Amino acid sequence: MTQRIDLNSDIGESFGAWTMGDDAGVLAHVSSANIACGFHAGDPDTMRRTVELAARAGVAIGAHVSLPDLQGFGRREMKLGADEAYALTLYQIGALAGFAHAAGTRLRHVKPHGALYNMAARDAGLADAIARATHDFDAALVLVGLAGSELPRAGERAGLRVAHEAFADRRYEKDGSLTPRREADAVIEDVDAAVAQALAIAMRGEVATRDGAVLQLRADTICVHGDRPNAAVFAARLCAALRTAGLPVMAPGARRSA
Amino acid sequence: MTQRIDLNSDIGESFGAWTMGDDAGVLAHVSSANIACGFHAGDPDTMRRTVELAARAGVAIGAHVSLPDLQGFGRREMKLGADEAYALTLYQIGALAGFAHAAGTRLRHVKPHGALYNMAARDAGLADAIARATHDFDAALVLVGLAGSELPRAGERAGLRVAHEAFADRRYEKDGSLTPRREADAVIEDVDAAVAQALAIAMRGEVATRDGAVLQLRADTICVHGDRPNAAVFAARLCAALRTAGLPVMAPGARRSA
Amino acid sequence: MTQRIDLNSDIGESFGAWTMGDDAGVLAHVSSANIACGFHAGDPDTMRRTVELAARAGVAIGAHVSLPDLQGFGRREMKLGADEAYALTLYQIGALAGFAHAAGTRLRHVKPHGALYNMAARDAGLADAIARATHDFDAALVLVGLAGSELPRAGERAGLRVAHEAFADRRYEKDGSLTPRREADAVIEDVDAAVAQALAIAMRGEVATRDGAVLQLRADTICVHGDRPNAAVFAARLCAALRTAGLPVMAPGARRSA
Amino acid sequence: MTQRIDLNSDIGESFGAWTMGDDAGVLAHVSSANIACGFHAGDPDTMRRTVELAARAGVAIGAHVSLPDLQGFGRREMKLGADEAYALTLYQIGALAGFAHAAGTRLRHVKPHGALYNMAARDAGLADAIARATHDFDAALVLVGLAGSELPRAGERAGLRVAHEAFADRRYEKDGSLTPRREADAVIEDVDAAVAQALAIAMRGEVATRDGAVLQLRADTICVHGDRPNAAVFAARLCAALRTAGLPVMAPGARRSA
Repeated sequence: MTQRIDLNSDIGESFGAWTMGDDAGVLAHVSSANIACGFHAGDPDTMRRTVELAARAGVAIGAHVSLPDLQGFGRREMKLGADEAYALTLYQIGALAGFAHAAGTRLRHVKPHGALYNMAARDAGLADAIARATHDFDAALVLVGLAGSELPRAGERAGLRVAHEAFADRRYEKDGSLTPRREADAVIEDVDAAVAQALAIAMRGEVATRDGAVLQLRADTICVHGDRPNAAVFAARLCAALRTAGLPVMAPGARRSA
Repeated sequence: MTQRIDLNSDIGESFGAWTMGDDAGVLAHVSSANIACGFHAGDPDTMRRTVELAARAGVAIGAHVSLPDLQGFGRREMKLGADEAYALTLYQIGALAGFAHAAGTRLRHVKPHGALYNMAARDAGLADAIARATHDFDAALVLVGLAGSELPRAGERAGLRVAHEAFADRRYEKDGSLTPRREADAVIEDVDAAVAQALAIAMRGEVATRDGAVLQLRADTICVHGDRPNAAVFAARLCAALRTAGLPVMAPGARRSA
Repeated sequence: MTQRIDLNSDIGESFGAWTMGDDAGVLAHVSSANIACGFHAGDPDTMRRTVELAARAGVAIGAHVSLPDLQGFGRREMKLGADEAYALTLYQIGALAGFAHAAGTRLRHVKPHGALYNMAARDAGLADAIARATHDFDAALVLVGLAGSELPRAGERAGLRVAHEAFADRRYEKDGSLTPRREADAVIEDVDAAVAQALAIAMRGEVATRDGAVLQLRADTICVHGDRPNAAVFAARLCAALRTAGLPVMAPGARRSA
Repeated sequence: MTQRIDLNSDIGESFGAWTMGDDAGVLAHVSSANIACGFHAGDPDTMRRTVELAARAGVAIGAHVSLPDLQGFGRREMKLGADEAYALTLYQIGALAGFAHAAGTRLRHVKPHGALYNMAARDAGLADAIARATHDFDAALVLVGLAGSELPRAGERAGLRVAHEAFADRRYEKDGSLTPRREADAVIEDVDAAVAQALAIAMRGEVATRDGAVLQLRADTICVHGDRPNAAVFAARLCAALRTAGLPVMAPGARRSA
């Protein structure tokens, strides 16, 4: 049984004149924040402001590394060599780490975004490249990936601490993969149902799949999508439900106070 | 009188399928290398390879930070707020520093590129933003800027060690600025003349201006343009001439061996 | 005295996953639409959808050409050669024209955006380059620029029909330039005041300047900013007020029905 | 038996300060030129110059449309919806057509580049999207694609004239696909061997595959890679050999003089 759980959210996904998400609202209710690094969203100014916001909120900061695809928001798969994946991961981690350092804090984790996340869940070679880049930057970083997938395995091979991630509001297939977004019921819109799924995952390590089976799922962290409607309200509900259930909500690397 | 001199060169200016410069050739004869960080040139793969090349050559590595303008190679001036300049400087330093760290080394200096270099030489507010970003990343970094210009002054205000830079093969105006590249004689093509100018600067702190006057010029580092024809040969000539004249060629932060 | 007036609005300023403006709402109340061409906003998919939307609304379609600066939304001035301005104008006109043609319609006008608009209002050489590119693409296009500025003059030199543009909700300086956005009162937030300014411009060719003087101003078209709050409501108010005052609202190139 | 043949080459693949290829040299010996449109290479200035160069050489001009990937030179496959492929094809054709029109000429053909070329050879849905965009721009354009693949079929479905393309210096697999570039013998370096392959294709419709079989291959156009060493010399050899063999070298849409 899990003794604690992390709530993470993707933030800093504005770009230039375009805004996205309610970062300040969400940050009040999560323990980890994955910050866009300029490849799918985020620009240097946005990154600086977002890091400062997350640091003030006392939330653990991580690099949300992506394929280079602003127009596609990092959601279009791209055939990438392992060397290319290594280099773009290291580039983005470094870029974000500079802002963290200037804000008096440091990066705690790395999580691939969008298509890179899905590709790294399936492709061991790509996952190894991302894990090595993370390790070469800082061996103390936590690597976050889809629960039970290739990415956490690669993280362990690289000697990193890993966090298996589950989703409160995404539907699961019986192989543990997420129902693709193109399917009608890929996202669980109902807040109560999403909170119930998060509780089942966090308390019992179980999730109901799309075809009604029950999947065993280890989860160290649960993702709150910042782009769903009323994301801050949802994060607050989720955080309260987990705490009521007796689970401390805290980042993977954080120490529990006595 | 200068007791030592640094020779620096801009490298890593390839991008994707396009190559530029003879980095390996030049690295054999300089003490510092300014590596493009993806904004005017360089991509994550190029940056990784270039950092490894420079590290193996034992040359001090610096971030060559630029305006975001790949098409214009960072040479087109852009009106930028101080906050924007701060953020893009920090982003690029961080991105390059990750590769340096992974290669077992660290950044020694920061030098703005192209239009940002020229703007920072004139504009104290912009220079301060660049200096603060450099300092916030690592107070031990050397800030390199046009000799006698606003940028070294801003570096000193920020508490940084600075390097005043002079050019072997660029013509000078009587106010210490460089003759703009659009002028016919902006670049000194003749190798002997360029070597002579470098020696005069390094040995006597003097340079002849375009209109024949003699300008006093403090220089801690001399730039060897990597994009001039036979840049490696030119670097070799320059390095040999300075050493023959009794000047150790070494990076600003390097310790002289006993 | 003006016998008719055009209402124009900047639309298609979404990019990828990021949305901006209420294009459908605004299109119901304007006669011309300036569509972003991918350099400050807009991507091929957005451009296609926006052109189809404008075509269905029966609104005249124009290319809103910009400096290449997505992050800065085309609002940061950049030093550009006349050749560069010519080429980027032609590129963007052509790109948008393809979508117009595929949608069964054609471009009616060209209007520079943001910093390029302001630069072209002051700089005759730049204005000539934009005018030549517009003319070389299609001599029947209307060139839209700041009323009384260099751009309409350049358009006339190039043999183009021009439209002098005024702003309902921007404050004017006594030289006819717009009060820069960094000034507190640059934008007229009050809807009644903005409508009154538009009426004074359209009916009497007059606008009150920031320091209380009255400026004579020829205007063929009035801009409705799509990014102001409730832009569609504002456009509706403006359109109704002009029609009530007896002015037909129609695009510069449109024929009045008998 | 083929009564005539087209020689085509990819040109305009410089970008900003980076140059690639010997465009002027190659243009002297080919009948068609595929010009990069800014997505894998080419910028507005390069496109303008390249179009003018090709127009002066009397070579048929086509749009070389690509995935949006400057760093990867359009060679990395990307998962793209049909709508996205339609829109980016139309955007690039339009952008290039503007330069052609300004240079007093017009586009004759469209050819996808790199990864988009390979994807469109296999994927009928993607091929249809490209063909429709080409047709919606101008039904008189010739669509160029891998001989015998999905793209020419899609072109015919869309009512376009198509050109089946073969390669002088690329190795073939027995299914008619090109040996992937990652294989050691993917490119036929030897000039004599490449000329012989081109002659066999053009005269007899036959090509020897990597495993020694003989493949029947209809080819209307043969590609001369502009990035191979001494591309201009190779193009000259190829052009002379074809003419000596009695085949007129001319663009698909060109009329034979009496």
